[in-house]
Amino acid sequence: MNALHIDWQPDKTLALPVYQQITDYFQRAIASGDWPMGAKIPSQRKLAAQFGVNRSTLITALDELVAVGLITSTPGSGMTVSGNHWSSLLAEHVNWAQYVQAGQFKPNSHAIQKINQFETDDVIRLSTGEPAPDQFPRALFQKAFDHLGQNLTSLNYTEPAGILALRQQIARHLAKVGIHTSADNILITSGSLQALQLVSMSLFPKDATIYTEAPTYVKSLHVFQSAHTHLAGVPMDNQGMAYWQLTPPAKDSHAIMYTIPTFNNPTGIVMSAERRQQVLAYAQDHRIPILEDAAYQDVWFDQQPPQPLKALDETGNVIYFGSISKSLAPGLRIGWTVATKPVIDRLTDVRMQTDYGASSLSQLVLAKILADPEYDTYQAHFREVLSHKAEAAQVILHRYWDDFATWDAPQGGFYLWVRLADRINIQKLFDLATAQNVLFNPGSIYDFQPNQYIRLSFSYESTERFEQGIRILTSLIKENF
Amino acid sequence: MNALHIDWQPDKTLALPVYQQITDYFQRAIASGDWPMGAKIPSQRKLAAQFGVNRSTLITALDELVAVGLITSTPGSGMTVSGNHWSSLLAEHVNWAQYVQAGQFKPNSHAIQKINQFETDDVIRLSTGEPAPDQFPRALFQKAFDHLGQNLTSLNYTEPAGILALRQQIARHLAKVGIHTSADNILITSGSLQALQLVSMSLFPKDATIYTEAPTYVKSLHVFQSAHTHLAGVPMDNQGMAYWQLTPPAKDSHAIMYTIPTFNNPTGIVMSAERRQQVLAYAQDHRIPILEDAAYQDVWFDQQPPQPLKALDETGNVIYFGSISKSLAPGLRIGWTVATKPVIDRLTDVRMQTDYGASSLSQLVLAKILADPEYDTYQAHFREVLSHKAEAAQVILHRYWDDFATWDAPQGGFYLWVRLADRINIQKLFDLATAQNVLFNPGSIYDFQPNQYIRLSFSYESTERFEQGIRILTSLIKENF
Repeated sequence: MNALHIDWQPDKTLALPVYQQITDYFQRAIASGDWPMGAKIPSQRKLAAQFGVNRSTLITALDELVAVGLITSTPGSGMTVSGNHWSSLLAEHVNWAQYVQAGQFKPNSHAIQKINQFETDDVIRLSTGEPAPDQFPRALFQKAFDHLGQNLTSLNYTEPAGILALRQQIARHLAKVGIHTSADNILITSGSLQALQLVSMSLFPKDATIYTEAPTYVKSLHVFQSAHTHLAGVPMDNQGMAYWQLTPPAKDSHAIMYTIPTFNNPTGIVMSAERRQQVLAYAQDHRIPILEDAAYQDVWFDQQPPQPLKALDETGNVIYFGSISKSLAPGLRIGWTVATKPVIDRLTDVRMQTDYGASSLSQLVLAKILADPEYDTYQAHFREVLSHKAEAAQVILHRYWDDFATWDAPQGGFYLWVRLADRINIQKLFDLATAQNVLFNPGSIYDFQPNQYIRLSFSYESTERFEQGIRILTSLIKENF
Repeated sequence: MNALHIDWQPDKTLALPVYQQITDYFQRAIASGDWPMGAKIPSQRKLAAQFGVNRSTLITALDELVAVGLITSTPGSGMTVSGNHWSSLLAEHVNWAQYVQAGQFKPNSHAIQKINQFETDDVIRLSTGEPAPDQFPRALFQKAFDHLGQNLTSLNYTEPAGILALRQQIARHLAKVGIHTSADNILITSGSLQALQLVSMSLFPKDATIYTEAPTYVKSLHVFQSAHTHLAGVPMDNQGMAYWQLTPPAKDSHAIMYTIPTFNNPTGIVMSAERRQQVLAYAQDHRIPILEDAAYQDVWFDQQPPQPLKALDETGNVIYFGSISKSLAPGLRIGWTVATKPVIDRLTDVRMQTDYGASSLSQLVLAKILADPEYDTYQAHFREVLSHKAEAAQVILHRYWDDFATWDAPQGGFYLWVRLADRINIQKLFDLATAQNVLFNPGSIYDFQPNQYIRLSFSYESTERFEQGIRILTSLIKENF
């Protein structure tokens, strides 16, 4: 368990002695339940620095807290919030730590918790899978807001599957990549992550096997595992998933395939047109449903990727997940699922029990923007900028890292998937880098076994900040490995 | 299974014979997977009417479809989409119906599915738990949109727990009802339904018992049951939950209490101040965490309800759920959870794996509106209008229903909880009413046993439409029972 995070300070202008302000603060934090039993208290050195007091004042306070039984001090392992000693207070407390552990959904991995927590602070974010804030199309949004301000007459729940006008716009948008569908076959979700969550709750039988590229984005989540299913990694070559290497599912056992054929996250690999046909045929032969995650569909550089599997799917075996997060604005939290009617109906029903639909406001704004003829112009410009950033990032990596790193040039997406020399301990590098306010994603959070990769995002930070981050990482690598 | 919903029609201006257009349409619907194996096809009479063709044309088409094995006709039980007969096509199909049944989350009850599906059509909605569209404060929203249009520079993911400015506004808002908390103890969710979902995934041990008022809103959902927990209904008197009637949890078994103390949904009962103290003390004695659902907190009529349990909670045992859906706009999809830090951290972590946060747009707009000094004026007016509608609805009920219905006057909230005379079959009345485009909620969807109640919402429809709905129901009751 991490030590408690403390940002309180005593007020030295008060009459109340500082040591007593400290004991009062500890009592309040523990009594309110914010500091659960067993929580680790920071070291004396850190506490003294945080409180701006000398060690002797601090020790006076801590001694008193130990004496009344609120905290326990164990030589060697430091101080913790006491268990049942201070019974008059704590006996009435629900032991939340126990509930937190007993809950059925798995916690994020330590690295991801750290990344989530740091990503909002002032750090260099080579981890972030988001468009750069300066690519935000203000004018498009301003037009949509103006329209809403003048025309919106209520903001109630929408149709269960999402606002019809938005589903129609998405159907139109999908036709451009070869998916011919209608509003009836589309469900709007709060981003495509929610769609995965819904599918796993609604359609996965217990103990189903989910075949997926190794490495893969979903390995970094617990959305599938929490539905009591098993992920099975399938190797990739440069054409995409090497489907012939997967162990065919046992008769009568449930198997599902999850794939990111276009700009696979994290590797950037694009499944070739031929491989798409083969994977589809294989899955049809074995009656394996396919979940196609197309989050990066629209962020290609020089040439449009092959058509989605869903465009080739004539039997309704493919469930397709799209999202506006990577090509416009993640803060809208809008994604879409395309599937046969029985699947859409089932997902819609569970969705209505889960959060009662996505923000109507986000849906209205997005429907307006997708209908705007300027949207295509924006998209073309967005892709061009991203492509330049990808190139610039690689020039920088060549300048600093050619001695110990290799990668393939991406054709789209947000990431460089970089293999570092074996001597570099990636977990250690991650810890050193976060201490210097640089974040990247260790490759092993995506993989089924340890690996020597890291994922670097070139999309979020400016090229200048990207270079600054790489310079810091370079120093760390040279000094430590 | 319901019969398939068909809204296609043949195009009589085409050269292709109409019967062939019909067989083509059936083939496409079945081949695409939209019509799953075993799905029930509407009767010949309904099909002929929908297609606008005479029976003999329709029969020509159906005969051909039966001949090629696409549909099966069974005397007495009608036509269904064939199983494996048409092997050349269907062998490659994933059997989605099987996945839909195997998924782990329970489907909504038939009545709720029907209500969800109908609520968007042109029906009289005495079922809808939403503010009336004409109470929508356009000016407040317009100001917020104008501000965003001028100031928004990006729309990315927010802090994992939600936008800080919004959490601060909510903390300020909560202080008015006696809950003194800080942004750190607040998690923003996509409505309070998502909060319940998160809590059940994150904190409920398997086989936990959830004590709750009977009847209760959560009985109509599967959000708790899907976490493998058991709901146990506790009777109410006019002061709220009769906690002394609950069987104390067995030693070492996990028990949790879920309560809607203020304007209980569906009954409207308000837990008295004294009962709140008692329930809190009981739960503390037995170390039972309390989930306090305060969705209707702000929609009181003449006098503010007693302080929330959370305001009286000194040990962090209560998790409090608030929402903007009932007092401003459900389409924002914003709710908030107040709890101790370890609980908030845990929920935030799971939430980041579930949908990566609520719409930033909704959060920004709501933060702006809550900070607007006009918000309080709007709220006072909103409550006044609602209170008048409640009164008017009761005048109407007295006029038409005094012979066979009783209810208690609500002090707040959206609903009348009406007991109908024993001779009235409520399920039958529900079916008759939906056929006449009037929706209400049968009381048994909220209860642990059949009952003679219905829930009528007076919030959504105008008083004129409310009366129109009651008139239709009155005729149905007089004619049929």
